Amino acid sequence: MEKTHNSQIPTKSSHKNEKEPEIITDKNQMRKWSRAMRSQGKTIGLVPTMGYLHEGHISLIKEAHKHTNLIVVSIYVNPGQFSPTEDLSTYPSDFDGDIQKLMAVPVGVDVVFHPYNLYDYGNSGVGGDGEVEKKGAVSCVEERGLGHETWVRVEWLEKGMCGKSRPVFFRGVATVVTKLFNIVEPDVALFGKKDYQQWRIIQRMVRDLDFSVEVIGSDIVRENDGLAMSSRNVHLSTEERKKALSINRSLSRAKFAAEKGQVNSGELRNMIIQEINEAGGRIDYAEIVDQETLEAVEEIKSPVVFCIAAWFGKVRLIDNMEINI
Amino acid sequence: MEKTHNSQIPTKSSHKNEKEPEIITDKNQMRKWSRAMRSQGKTIGLVPTMGYLHEGHISLIKEAHKHTNLIVVSIYVNPGQFSPTEDLSTYPSDFDGDIQKLMAVPVGVDVVFHPYNLYDYGNSGVGGDGEVEKKGAVSCVEERGLGHETWVRVEWLEKGMCGKSRPVFFRGVATVVTKLFNIVEPDVALFGKKDYQQWRIIQRMVRDLDFSVEVIGSDIVRENDGLAMSSRNVHLSTEERKKALSINRSLSRAKFAAEKGQVNSGELRNMIIQEINEAGGRIDYAEIVDQETLEAVEEIKSPVVFCIAAWFGKVRLIDNMEINI
Repeated sequence: MEKTHNSQIPTKSSHKNEKEPEIITDKNQMRKWSRAMRSQGKTIGLVPTMGYLHEGHISLIKEAHKHTNLIVVSIYVNPGQFSPTEDLSTYPSDFDGDIQKLMAVPVGVDVVFHPYNLYDYGNSGVGGDGEVEKKGAVSCVEERGLGHETWVRVEWLEKGMCGKSRPVFFRGVATVVTKLFNIVEPDVALFGKKDYQQWRIIQRMVRDLDFSVEVIGSDIVRENDGLAMSSRNVHLSTEERKKALSINRSLSRAKFAAEKGQVNSGELRNMIIQEINEAGGRIDYAEIVDQETLEAVEEIKSPVVFCIAAWFGKVRLIDNMEINI
Repeated sequence: MEKTHNSQIPTKSSHKNEKEPEIITDKNQMRKWSRAMRSQGKTIGLVPTMGYLHEGHISLIKEAHKHTNLIVVSIYVNPGQFSPTEDLSTYPSDFDGDIQKLMAVPVGVDVVFHPYNLYDYGNSGVGGDGEVEKKGAVSCVEERGLGHETWVRVEWLEKGMCGKSRPVFFRGVATVVTKLFNIVEPDVALFGKKDYQQWRIIQRMVRDLDFSVEVIGSDIVRENDGLAMSSRNVHLSTEERKKALSINRSLSRAKFAAEKGQVNSGELRNMIIQEINEAGGRIDYAEIVDQETLEAVEEIKSPVVFCIAAWFGKVRLIDNMEINI
């Protein structure tokens, strides 16, 4: 795509054949681009991210290329999914680095959608200009007046696992994804299965609200040592990171045990919890649930997924492993 | 629009120049029609209804013609907005009569979208085949499993007035309108200001979720005697109907008083409540609220709306009047 040089785009390592993505910050301009492309018969894939991109994100982009002609990557740290006590202010970001990484992806990406504030409606409400930055999370705000107050709830799936310790999280995720779908109007959207509950919630939301978007879940990408890739990994100390390997290790052991015939969820959970505790992690939850309904299972008789959240120091990590028995 | 004759369409009074709407029951076919029209540069107006059409609905269609090339009228009694104790099973319907009325509208309508069950996703969940009919309202169901569980909440606006006595109502309305927007993909959607709170909720939802739909509120249409048109009026006995005229009469008097300088909401409310009570109505609520935020006002200093819900026999009626001071 031809475009003029944009000063936001770093140039230090630009090689030939790298595709420079168009950077769009305005939502109306974003929708206009999508509609222009669709009128030319093109299909659009959306990879929603909060930036600080790693190989997991890149794998989503590569997967997206298999399904659509054009790729939009959104980079937006969504205040709507953080509670006031969570790590919105310390969530890592590196926009220039992200653009470099996207330019290095084979075939590249067409647009980076990078809005400033998706809760600013140009009035004096709580989502107004700059308010999100001042107030931090908007997710717990239920003030009267003209502020943002519409939330999409996937009422049962949002309650368990991550929803227990992060009660506004999935409400914020489902809402911002709805907004992104309405702005970008993609044909396909890609989500990482590392955020398993999130992926299932978005799938259910798309079905229940009749969105015309195909949701594709993409496999977890791991570091060489087995740690699931996450933007939050950067906050781990060397020692914490070593301890955190207990997550993947315990999941793999439990999977092996299940495949060898141990179908009692309680036994398998204890195995996982013990290993992570002994490594110095603090379990938030360790659950064995049905892959689609996310209901806890006592005895494994059908496809399940082992889901874990655990703290290492001040960093909360999640991971999971599907068992297809 | 050329089409073959459809046996669902009554023919007894078909005059020349009447446009026969295409009847679409399948959501994928509906979206396909909209996209085909859009690719020809046409714009689409949606008038969502629950059928049993009256002059109020027809006025919405006429208004829609001012804004778009093509008109879709949806006829769907949404179980998602009724609680189990409400009047879903007795809600009046007359599909053939509705089609006759639509054929008599000048310029006519292009499509009637008449789905059987928008909560049937072809699985064994609670929204499954026939389940809605058997169970009645789906709105209070929060079962696990594969049923419908995604709801759009406009969290503050949904709480007051009609939301107090009908706690799941606006959740159901916002959700089915989201579904209709995603299926029909209209450019413009028309809502009657008789359902004032509903209209404001949909406007807010469209803003907060970045729907690319212009929401237009259309003025209340009244019978010759002043009663606001409603599909539920058919359930009123002759005597109840006479009593129900107290709603419009009291609203008009309060408006007159406000325009003459009575700006105390308490006094105005008492005037309304007394008149309706004396006529034999039972007040559900009578509130004077800001036109946009729907917050109650003590003293009228800016545009407000008087909103009333009252029972006459077994029929609950709503009405309102804007005061632009």
